[in-house]
Amino acid sequence: MNTNEATGIKEIPDPALYTDLYQITMGQGYFRNGLYNKQASFDFFFRKAPFSGEFVVFAGLAELLEVLGRYRFTADEIAWLREKGFEDAFCEYLSRFTFDGTIRSVREGDVVFPGQPVLTVTGSLLSCQLVETLLLNILNFQSLIATKARRLRLAAGECKLVDFGLRRGQGAGSVAASRAAAIGGFDATSNVLAGKRYGIPVSGTMAHSWIQCFESELEAFRMYARLYPDTSILLVDTYDTIESGLPNAITVARELEEQGHRLTGIRLDSGNPLTLSSKARIMLDDAGLDYVAIAVSDQLDEQRIAELREKKAPIDVFGVGTRLITGYPDGALGGVYKICDLDGQPTMKYTDEVSKRSLPGIKEIDRLSDKDGFFMRDVIRLAEGEVGKKRAPKNIPHSDGSSKRVPSSKSTSEQIRSTIMENGKTLAQPTDITGIAEFSASRVARLPEKIKRLNEPERYEVVLDNPLVDLMEQLRK
Amino acid sequence: MNTNEATGIKEIPDPALYTDLYQITMGQGYFRNGLYNKQASFDFFFRKAPFSGEFVVFAGLAELLEVLGRYRFTADEIAWLREKGFEDAFCEYLSRFTFDGTIRSVREGDVVFPGQPVLTVTGSLLSCQLVETLLLNILNFQSLIATKARRLRLAAGECKLVDFGLRRGQGAGSVAASRAAAIGGFDATSNVLAGKRYGIPVSGTMAHSWIQCFESELEAFRMYARLYPDTSILLVDTYDTIESGLPNAITVARELEEQGHRLTGIRLDSGNPLTLSSKARIMLDDAGLDYVAIAVSDQLDEQRIAELREKKAPIDVFGVGTRLITGYPDGALGGVYKICDLDGQPTMKYTDEVSKRSLPGIKEIDRLSDKDGFFMRDVIRLAEGEVGKKRAPKNIPHSDGSSKRVPSSKSTSEQIRSTIMENGKTLAQPTDITGIAEFSASRVARLPEKIKRLNEPERYEVVLDNPLVDLMEQLRK
Repeated sequence: MNTNEATGIKEIPDPALYTDLYQITMGQGYFRNGLYNKQASFDFFFRKAPFSGEFVVFAGLAELLEVLGRYRFTADEIAWLREKGFEDAFCEYLSRFTFDGTIRSVREGDVVFPGQPVLTVTGSLLSCQLVETLLLNILNFQSLIATKARRLRLAAGECKLVDFGLRRGQGAGSVAASRAAAIGGFDATSNVLAGKRYGIPVSGTMAHSWIQCFESELEAFRMYARLYPDTSILLVDTYDTIESGLPNAITVARELEEQGHRLTGIRLDSGNPLTLSSKARIMLDDAGLDYVAIAVSDQLDEQRIAELREKKAPIDVFGVGTRLITGYPDGALGGVYKICDLDGQPTMKYTDEVSKRSLPGIKEIDRLSDKDGFFMRDVIRLAEGEVGKKRAPKNIPHSDGSSKRVPSSKSTSEQIRSTIMENGKTLAQPTDITGIAEFSASRVARLPEKIKRLNEPERYEVVLDNPLVDLMEQLRK
Repeated sequence: MNTNEATGIKEIPDPALYTDLYQITMGQGYFRNGLYNKQASFDFFFRKAPFSGEFVVFAGLAELLEVLGRYRFTADEIAWLREKGFEDAFCEYLSRFTFDGTIRSVREGDVVFPGQPVLTVTGSLLSCQLVETLLLNILNFQSLIATKARRLRLAAGECKLVDFGLRRGQGAGSVAASRAAAIGGFDATSNVLAGKRYGIPVSGTMAHSWIQCFESELEAFRMYARLYPDTSILLVDTYDTIESGLPNAITVARELEEQGHRLTGIRLDSGNPLTLSSKARIMLDDAGLDYVAIAVSDQLDEQRIAELREKKAPIDVFGVGTRLITGYPDGALGGVYKICDLDGQPTMKYTDEVSKRSLPGIKEIDRLSDKDGFFMRDVIRLAEGEVGKKRAPKNIPHSDGSSKRVPSSKSTSEQIRSTIMENGKTLAQPTDITGIAEFSASRVARLPEKIKRLNEPERYEVVLDNPLVDLMEQLRK
């Protein structure tokens, strides 16, 4: 059961027209020439990990399933398509259309790598084609944000990470982005709707406007602390952080102590966070307020956070907005969706540009781990029963073309994809955000350091098995 | 009447919780200390134009008005807030809350500049505060995309521009993005929902999957041309653009001619667009097919398009996806919303960082044009009746501090903001996309070349009038 289905959450209210025109134009073509009902398979994969990294945290699956489960053309939409010149017979067909495909996929939150068939849709050619844009829109974006969030988490260590992105988010997608951030390891969000919809802890401090609504900064702090004596985080940079904000916060913290409460923290939102947090820590500690946390916001990203932590900036909480919510600087994961099989015949795109080629046939991914549980290598192989019922061999070609036998005593192999939707029906899927986030963290923990480091990571080995390579050679001819 | 209201379009279905937690926390604070009903004013402005440019195309206003018009807390939302610990009296108040503010704003589609109060919300302090995040989310994103689209239009000249962005868009915000692209000068979109909702022309070609569903590329082209004899744009790069795609397209174009039809175009989606479009043009012309258009897609942006046009690449249509829809490389317009007046008292944020300061008081913007109609300078002045009923003088201080009298015979001045919502009621606003796009184009046409050029534009002069400068000085003390 999908959480979204259970709660009636709809990030995308009108899925059928949430698509590129050519999907419907081609759909009509397939309908007219009789191909529409042939069984097809399409792979979702990306060619390059974002942020100059090596891995992607796969996210968006629960929403995709929710949307596919209620994929319908409304009467109003059908009428509009007729107006636009689509033919009666096709419109009639679409008016009864539901998505009845089967989907095999990596689990939401798992780590995936360039070139892998992360998810495969199998169904009528029309079904597969109609949902392409929708699927790409959801998976590309949420995977981008979950990946960014994970990089921020890797940089932030044990510090608290809060999503402050909504005001700079790209419109209505911002709620799904906060969900993806939680999957990637964020502790909380300022986005109330995301908190309510997905059960993410919500968190917030105060704005400069609060300070400006009172005669003085001290009065503003005092008033806030009186209202929220156990949860106040005071924003100290409205006028002068060191000369005014911090002394006033310290005064109020002491007053709170007298009343049996404790100030939660202070927040720095401008200036040099290294210098200011260091000074703030000394001032707070000198005042006996070593329990008061220091939160920092203002144009943070994983590089900035890593640098601050390396320089031992005494920061406890990082609020990350713009650069999380927009997946800065990349802005998009370039995931694509390519046909790999039609009516039992493997097919591939064999274009001039090698980087734009696709893998033919129905495939699976085996992930090999070393004896300590670290991921060593992924093998993309043809699924059992594909191409003359050949089984995938144990021989794995290296990228240099040679091959070696994997010593089975020292490594374990798991098939990382499973069937998550069968003939349009969603199979049991974890949708609880905490659970998905924990699973995701456990997978990232098994990535070798050299693969997940922020800068210049090594390549994670992804190899193709021999029958797949043979098939590609055969199709190329 | 707002188009969205008329058609029931809701990009953001649940506006009240589409906010940062601290807006509600502060709101409860204002409610408890009695400030909530004081009249306040907040300015929306940005500090820096995106894309290293000098101007922003203001967009998102129609949606903002639509959302504010139905801003309500549902019973379910109120129950959730109670659960989260918000107090009964405040929740009770929120359950009856509607937005009753007054908004003065620049028209949607106009060009605006850093530091200007583009839009001002005046209403109860609680009203102003609750809608901050929502307002920023809508205006920041749509203005970002409209600005990017306008830069692409400036680069593309008279060529056709089509939005192909949906598959790489940031989730559900992508529909609003296509609307913003149309305001910024795009001719069409592949996004069907955006086309239907906003009356934007929809357009599309074919995908590689179509080609791969047939025995041969030739057969795939033929079948498509038979179905769409007058609108086919054939994708020629699935196998080999020059050796296979183009010859096959030419064959089909000739077959279409024999049947009294004309091939609309071919599309290049990989490889070097300059070389390939040049070769394609020669091959098509040699075959007597000079009317067949050449469309190009694949990672285009304004710099790439400008370069292709400078090198005389014979391209008729540019399909722009990722870099339009994500506002690449910036990803966000950093617009902020700062209180400027509370209960008749001007206020400003006077932080350590000069760039983060705000302008106090209720202000207006006068735009001066030269005798040819080109915009010369914007003057931010205190509104009539502000600060001891002083009127704004004709003396305009230059950025260097000096001032000069504007020769009224040679220039005209217009006040670029007007009241668009009064006590929560939307006043008549243009919402037709074609009209807004035309207005926008007419405003950009009046920007001097040096201001709107893609690279290293000059600064557009925005100055503050003397009473405003005096007020700032007075408040700083």
